[in-house]
Amino acid sequence: MYLRIDRLQIELPAPKEPDPNAAAAVQELLGGRFGEMNTLMTYTYQSFNFRLHKNPALKPFRDLVSNIATEELGHIELVSATINALYVGATKPAPPEQAPLKPLKDARNTYHAAMTGLGAFPFDSHGAPWKGEYIFVSGNLVLDFLYNFFLEVGARLAKMRVYEMTDNPVAREMIGYLLVRGGVHALAYGKALEALTGVEVWRMLPIPSVPNSKFP
Amino acid sequence: MYLRIDRLQIELPAPKEPDPNAAAAVQELLGGRFGEMNTLMTYTYQSFNFRLHKNPALKPFRDLVSNIATEELGHIELVSATINALYVGATKPAPPEQAPLKPLKDARNTYHAAMTGLGAFPFDSHGAPWKGEYIFVSGNLVLDFLYNFFLEVGARLAKMRVYEMTDNPVAREMIGYLLVRGGVHALAYGKALEALTGVEVWRMLPIPSVPNSKFP
Amino acid sequence: MYLRIDRLQIELPAPKEPDPNAAAAVQELLGGRFGEMNTLMTYTYQSFNFRLHKNPALKPFRDLVSNIATEELGHIELVSATINALYVGATKPAPPEQAPLKPLKDARNTYHAAMTGLGAFPFDSHGAPWKGEYIFVSGNLVLDFLYNFFLEVGARLAKMRVYEMTDNPVAREMIGYLLVRGGVHALAYGKALEALTGVEVWRMLPIPSVPNSKFP
Amino acid sequence: MYLRIDRLQIELPAPKEPDPNAAAAVQELLGGRFGEMNTLMTYTYQSFNFRLHKNPALKPFRDLVSNIATEELGHIELVSATINALYVGATKPAPPEQAPLKPLKDARNTYHAAMTGLGAFPFDSHGAPWKGEYIFVSGNLVLDFLYNFFLEVGARLAKMRVYEMTDNPVAREMIGYLLVRGGVHALAYGKALEALTGVEVWRMLPIPSVPNSKFP
Amino acid sequence: MYLRIDRLQIELPAPKEPDPNAAAAVQELLGGRFGEMNTLMTYTYQSFNFRLHKNPALKPFRDLVSNIATEELGHIELVSATINALYVGATKPAPPEQAPLKPLKDARNTYHAAMTGLGAFPFDSHGAPWKGEYIFVSGNLVLDFLYNFFLEVGARLAKMRVYEMTDNPVAREMIGYLLVRGGVHALAYGKALEALTGVEVWRMLPIPSVPNSKFP
Amino acid sequence: MYLRIDRLQIELPAPKEPDPNAAAAVQELLGGRFGEMNTLMTYTYQSFNFRLHKNPALKPFRDLVSNIATEELGHIELVSATINALYVGATKPAPPEQAPLKPLKDARNTYHAAMTGLGAFPFDSHGAPWKGEYIFVSGNLVLDFLYNFFLEVGARLAKMRVYEMTDNPVAREMIGYLLVRGGVHALAYGKALEALTGVEVWRMLPIPSVPNSKFP
Repeated sequence: MYLRIDRLQIELPAPKEPDPNAAAAVQELLGGRFGEMNTLMTYTYQSFNFRLHKNPALKPFRDLVSNIATEELGHIELVSATINALYVGATKPAPPEQAPLKPLKDARNTYHAAMTGLGAFPFDSHGAPWKGEYIFVSGNLVLDFLYNFFLEVGARLAKMRVYEMTDNPVAREMIGYLLVRGGVHALAYGKALEALTGVEVWRMLPIPSVPNSKFP
Repeated sequence: MYLRIDRLQIELPAPKEPDPNAAAAVQELLGGRFGEMNTLMTYTYQSFNFRLHKNPALKPFRDLVSNIATEELGHIELVSATINALYVGATKPAPPEQAPLKPLKDARNTYHAAMTGLGAFPFDSHGAPWKGEYIFVSGNLVLDFLYNFFLEVGARLAKMRVYEMTDNPVAREMIGYLLVRGGVHALAYGKALEALTGVEVWRMLPIPSVPNSKFP
Repeated sequence: MYLRIDRLQIELPAPKEPDPNAAAAVQELLGGRFGEMNTLMTYTYQSFNFRLHKNPALKPFRDLVSNIATEELGHIELVSATINALYVGATKPAPPEQAPLKPLKDARNTYHAAMTGLGAFPFDSHGAPWKGEYIFVSGNLVLDFLYNFFLEVGARLAKMRVYEMTDNPVAREMIGYLLVRGGVHALAYGKALEALTGVEVWRMLPIPSVPNSKFP
Repeated sequence: MYLRIDRLQIELPAPKEPDPNAAAAVQELLGGRFGEMNTLMTYTYQSFNFRLHKNPALKPFRDLVSNIATEELGHIELVSATINALYVGATKPAPPEQAPLKPLKDARNTYHAAMTGLGAFPFDSHGAPWKGEYIFVSGNLVLDFLYNFFLEVGARLAKMRVYEMTDNPVAREMIGYLLVRGGVHALAYGKALEALTGVEVWRMLPIPSVPNSKFP
Repeated sequence: MYLRIDRLQIELPAPKEPDPNAAAAVQELLGGRFGEMNTLMTYTYQSFNFRLHKNPALKPFRDLVSNIATEELGHIELVSATINALYVGATKPAPPEQAPLKPLKDARNTYHAAMTGLGAFPFDSHGAPWKGEYIFVSGNLVLDFLYNFFLEVGARLAKMRVYEMTDNPVAREMIGYLLVRGGVHALAYGKALEALTGVEVWRMLPIPSVPNSKFP
Repeated sequence: MYLRIDRLQIELPAPKEPDPNAAAAVQELLGGRFGEMNTLMTYTYQSFNFRLHKNPALKPFRDLVSNIATEELGHIELVSATINALYVGATKPAPPEQAPLKPLKDARNTYHAAMTGLGAFPFDSHGAPWKGEYIFVSGNLVLDFLYNFFLEVGARLAKMRVYEMTDNPVAREMIGYLLVRGGVHALAYGKALEALTGVEVWRMLPIPSVPNSKFP
């Protein structure tokens, strides 16, 4: 069971100018193979299938993946809010005859104009839908956590690149926050892998080796 | 932001005998076009894109879709628990040479055996993944709620049919509960449509016209 | 069995200037989730599966969906003609060395240039193919018609938005016609639902509440 | 524009016994890569994009593909009728508690039971949807007709194999008819290719080299 | 078993100026329905399934398709090298804060920027992945080779059109080479069809009828 | 450039009895998300995009991934040979009227019967095609190799489970060989990660912790 608190995890700056193509790029971080939908759903289904919960030695691992999964719900909310913000001011109210959506005819993402009413949806930067086949849930704890560790650093790379594609302050505020949280999650899965296997895989971090401080 | 409470919405009966093909069928109610993933994600993204929240007249509608969305998170958890339960006892521990997974070679869903470790994942009864393109979020309130009303009754039909495909008590307990909750949601969206348009669309219910009491 | 009459449902104006990105946007109305392929195929398969035709009380409903399905065949023809028209003049004949298709390298839809010879095909505005999974055919008459009612108003919204994305006269002539016919179909399904359930769902129309007269 | 005549192209025998797995196999001939949806849609879009119709030398080719396209509409109708027929008697009316759909839980196609009400839909024998990307429409007449010739013989092979998978009389009656019509179409495209290129490609027929008479 | 020689089939000219949208278009020739991935995989699986190799009369056909398949491995390598070359100089190293990837935000293919690090991958010009369902392998030799013949000329058309979309010298050098090799393959399959059926289908070539010399 | 040697990497035992459902399961190891198509294509495209080859320090990593990629070509060949072998004897030659393919109507994979002529193709155990989106190629060496390490152990789990689903000697011989080779590759990527980051990630192996000797 879940509860919702009607508040974003961080406050986003007020949008200053619209940027439809940045909105298109940010969709990669929502519905792409390394977007928040994927971290959310991978961890959620791993936690759902954690059936050996009678074994007290496994409880900390189940708690870890459950807690991160719940936090990721707030992440899809935050990325969605950003996408909405990037469209504020992109069109001006006008009678249909004046073609008020014409500025969007040449934009990267025409689903936003034709389908969602300039809102977010679980698709990537090319308008391909998020798919359940992106998740990984194997029933093998070490393997699942090794994937989670990889997924967090793969998602880190995607976030960095979208950051480098746009200087919009709303997008950057959101990405900066997610980079910090993603770093915490990568470390947590790395530490869990150490507890399970003795290997200090977390010492590889950060991957890529650029520190978060470069993405202010 | 969200919180998770580590408890299912209802208690499921202890599994008595495994039923892999029932598990395959129940996946339709998780990752199918009318499964809980779709109600969950449709309502979640509608609530995320509800940007006109400054207008107090719209707040009740936003609250409605947000609350149902949050409840649906518990539904994917419940259906997943059912799928796990349907595999209890389906295989016996044995050395690989004895082919302990052989009983599942002819089962409907071989991903469960080969990939998920006999756990749930967001796929339908044929092993097709849930896709973001299943959701509907248009930015038009009446249209969104008309879809939600349709989606609830479409999901009702799917649940009834899966119920009629299996007499497994765990599956039936879960479906019986979801039929009741789905009925509440359909009525709620119907009443909201009446408030918005004056049309008592909820008087069509139940669709199909068989009452829930036939699905004990 | 079917017959074809070699004539479009309406005459389209002669194309004046090419608009490849409008052609890309119009594809949404052909192969998108709310495009004419979907109304066509949904109604066609509903009519094919209407096996209870021995019951004379059901005959009017079967006739209704069969007739609209047949009309939709003319709609995919009309939208396709529009897409072809939007490319007239988009390229100039020249030897390959002069790269006569270069103006289309940056266009929204590169399949048109590389694959179809600047013709129509059953894809949406992002180049995603129409898929059989878009259709809805449940075997439950009330539910099928409730979907059809929703589908018509969903398609109305998509048409309005594509209209607002382009002021090309060929595209607008086609969309204006389809808005009128779609309104007739929505009303017809609404009236059928009233006959079946007593609820005057058609009183919700038009959805969105902007009248067709605003889309001349 | 199109007209519909409420009659199948041939009369099908009355179904004697249900065969759900034959229904699943026959879906390959409806929504598979070599099913009737594909011949229908390939020819339909080729005819729609045939813009050079002012050139009288091309008119016979346009007429050919238009006429075959229209005939294919009757083919999807006929295959759909067969799929419906194969389910007659597959279930017995009973209260839900008795699980009247239980015989279908282990069937090859569970969408039929859970979604379509035991009716046809544009999917293949594995429940994968027909997709617009299956069609071929290039704007090059020789190439289009070469594909059509290939498509007809590819479809012939698929039909023969489904015939060899079931001895159900309804399925065989339908397939026997389609083999004859497909042979006519293959020959017609072959003769058109001869007219266009001088090569008697039709002399390769039949492919496979087994005559239709072996499929009574 | 295979061996790899670390050398491209031809030398490509040094890239002079970046052209991200040409890179996007060239992806059609790698992962599109008529791209090199498809010729490669179609021929490879046909050769793998050629089980009648005990029959010496069939050996030449098996050798033919095996050899061309192996050559196609070098083709995906060559097209990939071209895509990489088209990005040389497209971005300038800079700290993230200066948004060094910003020039690519509006480009046709944002996966290249966000996911692959400006490298090639098996996707088409719209960012749709190559799919195993594109290949054709039927077990019928005449039909397989008829498809291969069609595939080569279909691929020829796609190459010509991408050539006409860009005047970039690297892209043109690669396409010119592939047009020549594709012509050889089309002829080889045509001659094999003649050996199998007596029909001189290769006399249709070239399709399209424009000679290769026009694509220097 | 590549060369092909007409020999499998190991000799497979002569097939004794057909097992169509084992053939269906083995497809997971060919075209599934952890099948040989995916290791092949991931490594191949990583090697293609390895543009920094001027830096001699990177050459060993490029050589590593290139060599493993080439070996994987032999793996898809071997798995395909196995699938073919599993169908030997599955049908008996007979005139179509006797429905010689009827035993396959109820089999897990009906594409094999209807489409491929009982041969292999790049699809998974549910008949879903391998897709280019399964590969991972990021342009970041540590991240790519971390994925490769994960991919090898994920593939190991899939192989073990398919092994446990069938006791067919041909399937087991092939899987036993691939388990050994996969172990070598996992170790190699692990050692490369150590060279790049100093972390002895390979000490986690084997994942799952069951030794290969249990899969004779």
